[in-house]
Amino acid sequence: MDERRLARVRENLSKRDLAQMLVVDPISIKWLCGYYTEPYERFLALYVPAQGAPTLFANQLFPDPSGCGARIVSFSDTDDPVAFVTETCTREQPLGVDKALMARWLVPLMESGAASGFVLASDAVDGARSIKDAREQDLMRAASATNDQAMAWLVKQIAPGVTERTIADALLGEYRRLGAEGHSFSPIVSFGDHGADPHHEPDDTAFVPGDVVLFDVGCRQEDYCSDMTRTFFTAEPTDHQRAVYETVRRANEAAEKIVRPGVTFAEIDLTARRTIEDAGWGPYFTHRLGHQIGLVDHEPGDVSASHDEPVQPGQCFSIEPGIYLPGDMGVRIEDLLIVTETGCEILNHYPHDLVVL
Amino acid sequence: MDERRLARVRENLSKRDLAQMLVVDPISIKWLCGYYTEPYERFLALYVPAQGAPTLFANQLFPDPSGCGARIVSFSDTDDPVAFVTETCTREQPLGVDKALMARWLVPLMESGAASGFVLASDAVDGARSIKDAREQDLMRAASATNDQAMAWLVKQIAPGVTERTIADALLGEYRRLGAEGHSFSPIVSFGDHGADPHHEPDDTAFVPGDVVLFDVGCRQEDYCSDMTRTFFTAEPTDHQRAVYETVRRANEAAEKIVRPGVTFAEIDLTARRTIEDAGWGPYFTHRLGHQIGLVDHEPGDVSASHDEPVQPGQCFSIEPGIYLPGDMGVRIEDLLIVTETGCEILNHYPHDLVVL
Repeated sequence: MDERRLARVRENLSKRDLAQMLVVDPISIKWLCGYYTEPYERFLALYVPAQGAPTLFANQLFPDPSGCGARIVSFSDTDDPVAFVTETCTREQPLGVDKALMARWLVPLMESGAASGFVLASDAVDGARSIKDAREQDLMRAASATNDQAMAWLVKQIAPGVTERTIADALLGEYRRLGAEGHSFSPIVSFGDHGADPHHEPDDTAFVPGDVVLFDVGCRQEDYCSDMTRTFFTAEPTDHQRAVYETVRRANEAAEKIVRPGVTFAEIDLTARRTIEDAGWGPYFTHRLGHQIGLVDHEPGDVSASHDEPVQPGQCFSIEPGIYLPGDMGVRIEDLLIVTETGCEILNHYPHDLVVL
Repeated sequence: MDERRLARVRENLSKRDLAQMLVVDPISIKWLCGYYTEPYERFLALYVPAQGAPTLFANQLFPDPSGCGARIVSFSDTDDPVAFVTETCTREQPLGVDKALMARWLVPLMESGAASGFVLASDAVDGARSIKDAREQDLMRAASATNDQAMAWLVKQIAPGVTERTIADALLGEYRRLGAEGHSFSPIVSFGDHGADPHHEPDDTAFVPGDVVLFDVGCRQEDYCSDMTRTFFTAEPTDHQRAVYETVRRANEAAEKIVRPGVTFAEIDLTARRTIEDAGWGPYFTHRLGHQIGLVDHEPGDVSASHDEPVQPGQCFSIEPGIYLPGDMGVRIEDLLIVTETGCEILNHYPHDLVVL
């Protein structure tokens, strides 16, 4: 059990007048007590009371959790884990629940009267996870350094006839060679107008010289995630293409420039968005500017107009403006950064310059 | 919208006196209306009323859902989708909810008074999905035929010094070559006593001649999943090893033999379990006998002592007994089958015989 992290979660719960919480995100459980398993449809939860040892509820089929510092309640596939949780909870108090708790468990917990009320309390854990300590920041830097190297490898794979899928499939081997465990998300390789779909899945489309090429990739290294996007030309860009590219680049750099403690996530989003709107492509920047990142690629607390909290030192997030023109092209330029005491540190060093491969 | 499937779901809802349901499992949404996207942390749901067109709630960032036959409510990253769902629901009626609905959305839906009550109703969809129609059965056969071929390829990869991870990583290319889209789950390759962990993740352990080798692998082909396990010897087995293997094999075959409409999932589990218990290894068969499978590798309604419903024609599930001896070895033999009118059809044809590679 990481007592320092546990104390931060308890402090957040106390601010919300909560004396108990059920954490179910497997990554949050790992972050708190070092125990990790992916439970799939089975039940896994860490019950955190205001005082005393937390309790881990784990199926007997999972790897042995003993030694993680929590009291262990284990059960088999034929037991009802809801009954065990209900016994452990303080019925007279409200229970904070993790946002990932599925109705499959939450509805029976409500029906069994496990607590006097059920309150969304993920923020207590997510807010604590959001602030990366010095060691976590080093791991974020290392994962992004690997991603910079992977981008240099990716551009070398572009050749007539190569397919999006061939490159996407081969990237795992390159990440492994560079020391990463694997992908932090399913890699995006987009040729031509496929770039206009921000979430395009690589398919058997072959590269044709002249295609605009977009790579949005990330690795997981020592458990921490990287995530970067670059867009390349493979023929001299038209004035229109150049204008789109340079607008996205300016949006990215304007947003990165204003990041410092006290500036809100919404202001950062707005800075990039206004750059794109002023150039006339506002309706084609269809998503939030970015997302926090750490042990998973998308962590809560996004960089968007609806998130008006100020950023804090140690927070790590993406800045990824894009312009998506259906049937024509898409451009996105994405970096990760860490908020410092006075500004921010950009974790990706692969250049933003317009490049014709 | 697949009206026949929609009608089956509505019939199941009506049996439970429910006039509305919120489906959130992206695969169930695809199965009903043909629209698929993985929403990650964003909101995606299909509201199914007793009468009239269903409503699909989709973020504007998702691929365009128009043409799926549902009324579309689209929203942006800065909107609150809960408000839109609340407007659509009939407040005076209870709302059936999918088991996968996260507290993140369920708690605010409750707080906004979207319905007069919230009832777990996944069975209405899962029960309908569980019965595969003729076309689905053909696709299940095809995916398992590919998996049989992949197993024949896997045994050829065993050589001194090769690592679990090398083989697991290379399997994707083989599945693609055989016509599958990819894995249906993260493949398990276990050498030596790693087989004693039923969910072992392939690592850098190198094969040493004499190791017991376990492969638990599956592909997704035309959206349908396969899943098979075989265990091999690489030196003449000891009497102990042979006894463990033959016990698992008998457990598998005894269970497969009794499957026919009317027999319960629990009886099938018990048949295999008793075979292993009678041989003295009962405590080392630590999981349920199997799981249903189709568009995803683990579908609801498991083959376990706690599931006392009778199996029905068209259901497809795994039979996968195992014996796990920590520090020593693990053996598991798994096939998929489809329940027929008079018995069952085993989808895997890779032999069960004890083989020394």
